[in-house]
Amino acid sequence: MTDKRGDLMKRQLRGNMLIAQSGGPSMVINRSLVGAVIEAKKHKEIQRIYGALNGIKGILEENFIDLRKETKAVLQAVAGTPSSALGTVRKKATHENCLKILEVLKKYNVRYFFYIGGNDTADNAHIISEEAKKTGFEVRCFHIPKTIDNDLRENDHTPGFGSAARFVALGVMGDNLDNRALPGVKIDVIMGRNAGFLTAASALARVYPDDGPHLIYLPERPFSMTQFVDDVLSVYKKLGRCVVAVSEGISDENGTPIVTKFIKEVDSHGNVQLSGSGALGDLLATEVRTKAQISRVRADTFGYLQRSFPAVISATDAKEAWQVGVEAVRCALRMERGSIVIRRKPTKKYQVYFECVPLKRVAKGTAKMPVKFINKPGNDVTKLFLDYAKPLVGNLPVIGRFKGVGIK
Amino acid sequence: MTDKRGDLMKRQLRGNMLIAQSGGPSMVINRSLVGAVIEAKKHKEIQRIYGALNGIKGILEENFIDLRKETKAVLQAVAGTPSSALGTVRKKATHENCLKILEVLKKYNVRYFFYIGGNDTADNAHIISEEAKKTGFEVRCFHIPKTIDNDLRENDHTPGFGSAARFVALGVMGDNLDNRALPGVKIDVIMGRNAGFLTAASALARVYPDDGPHLIYLPERPFSMTQFVDDVLSVYKKLGRCVVAVSEGISDENGTPIVTKFIKEVDSHGNVQLSGSGALGDLLATEVRTKAQISRVRADTFGYLQRSFPAVISATDAKEAWQVGVEAVRCALRMERGSIVIRRKPTKKYQVYFECVPLKRVAKGTAKMPVKFINKPGNDVTKLFLDYAKPLVGNLPVIGRFKGVGIK
Repeated sequence: MTDKRGDLMKRQLRGNMLIAQSGGPSMVINRSLVGAVIEAKKHKEIQRIYGALNGIKGILEENFIDLRKETKAVLQAVAGTPSSALGTVRKKATHENCLKILEVLKKYNVRYFFYIGGNDTADNAHIISEEAKKTGFEVRCFHIPKTIDNDLRENDHTPGFGSAARFVALGVMGDNLDNRALPGVKIDVIMGRNAGFLTAASALARVYPDDGPHLIYLPERPFSMTQFVDDVLSVYKKLGRCVVAVSEGISDENGTPIVTKFIKEVDSHGNVQLSGSGALGDLLATEVRTKAQISRVRADTFGYLQRSFPAVISATDAKEAWQVGVEAVRCALRMERGSIVIRRKPTKKYQVYFECVPLKRVAKGTAKMPVKFINKPGNDVTKLFLDYAKPLVGNLPVIGRFKGVGIK
Repeated sequence: MTDKRGDLMKRQLRGNMLIAQSGGPSMVINRSLVGAVIEAKKHKEIQRIYGALNGIKGILEENFIDLRKETKAVLQAVAGTPSSALGTVRKKATHENCLKILEVLKKYNVRYFFYIGGNDTADNAHIISEEAKKTGFEVRCFHIPKTIDNDLRENDHTPGFGSAARFVALGVMGDNLDNRALPGVKIDVIMGRNAGFLTAASALARVYPDDGPHLIYLPERPFSMTQFVDDVLSVYKKLGRCVVAVSEGISDENGTPIVTKFIKEVDSHGNVQLSGSGALGDLLATEVRTKAQISRVRADTFGYLQRSFPAVISATDAKEAWQVGVEAVRCALRMERGSIVIRRKPTKKYQVYFECVPLKRVAKGTAKMPVKFINKPGNDVTKLFLDYAKPLVGNLPVIGRFKGVGIK
């Protein structure tokens, strides 16, 4: 601590702070925001604390609010509220944008810039930091991790994932009970464009040996419609029912998302819209109904509930989301720039620690499910994944089942 | 109590009990089941306690389990578990079925028959009771209410509704926050074939004056696509965003469900399948996208999560669901047959009491949202509805919002 303070004193920089949120909301992104704000208020180097509305859009338009004017009670209430309280944006800064942003930072004497989001967000922070360096304007640029997809590199897992995964596990847990009571085939479409972590978390729903999800399809493995229908039929013949968890991002052997044949809309990052539509689930249900000749086939798309539902936040996720905000501020007081990452200790009991890594290490590319987490046939996860995910999601409700002693 | 005991002693009937679950699962139907079983164990008139698997299907096939063989711990765990632990069925008894069921009841000396479900279930109990009477076999037939749709006649509200409504309110609460952070039009399709109660419960999500749902469409009013698009556009122009809650059962002026143009499957009651598909949401989203020229339009169908999600059970609902099971057994010990109903006391503080009414009063027809609960234009609910629904759903999470003092 003494060393760190020494380091801090050497590099002391006085000025204002700007913080913004980007990308899809999560259940705990506001904890990172409030964690950073409350930490910032403890340090005299940080003067005014601005919040930009709707990410870089708000910076470009100088649309700021004064976060020092918010009461402690409001800050605490916002921290416990899902979604992005400052508003967010799906917009990647162009080079022109960055020059304009830099002018704005100078104009408001912003010396501490924190941007909460995924890898595109880290990339934006990186570009702004690079441009600032060129002009000789000292501004500490930090990325605070957030993504329900859990696809940020360098991180053991990301804030937002644990709570979304908890929603998914609970949802499939209930759905498995529903399907057991009223048998048929049930397909649940779960978020995750390129990474299958969220869909994989559905496996935590299993309590009894015959519990669903019976099949899990991830974007990490090429999706074959024939294999899918065969798999479903095989489970159905054995159990008289089948619950399937499918990632919205499942793609064929050529890497073409199965759903892109049906939806055309793209955002400014060039990403095809996969959520907010029931198209993929309905397509898969129709295939099973016609090819496997099973009459009761249903599909639900969990949709935005996975990232904004207010009542199932994982305690671990909540704590860590707060802490990455705190750590970012602490790092900014003694470093130029970076991205806060979560590392897991190799201890038996779940424990984490935080580090600050170069922005570009998080900005470039995304992480996927490691091979060891997916079973050989590519239709389930492994025990290693369950061990990995359990502490992030937390304890799930007790699920009772009758012993069911028959009558002669 | 003395009078009731006297009545009970006069009509004492000794024999076995059979209990079954029917129709769509709910989050609390197992509480009614376990409540009835635990009450039954207190009365010496009731000897063996059988559970029929998958409703009347299990009775016809003599597929019973011995509920006296279940431990107290298992019973308690099952009570806290969503969905129908005995399995359920969507099958209405034919006259032939009823004669067969009666034979089975005689064979197993069943003198107490409890059937948990909606109005079709009450109707089945009624038919079986009538047939039994004709043959002179004394069996006490009771209907225990359950339906997330809240559409049972005679009841102020039904067990299962409060918890499903809680899920809906929480879901739309989160969705409104999501939509506020990333503006556009969001359409949420909510369960409810003929009754709009569940969709209406989305209104409980509102905390701040500009919160969604901004529009609510119920099956009780004819749905006009033109009016819908106009309404959405009007809200969107005012707020820059719009959250819409739509019942899956919305129908045109001729009473034809909007979605039936797309889905053909029907169950054995002749009901069209409205759930387990994203078709209606996608259809409405496409209309808004094309007719109102709004680019960011999303639709989610809440689906089966509404009736089986394990983590958001309403405390009031849980308590009442247990109690209807208890009351049914108590009534069966002193009456021939009936349906347990929940009545609300006209007190300021929410209080209920239970009554037993003739089966046919619940069996015939369903309830709808009263006119006083729907606003004049038919695109929202009234304060009277909110006052009605609030105590059933319970307290919702605190939602924080920044005061948002701007920077000059």
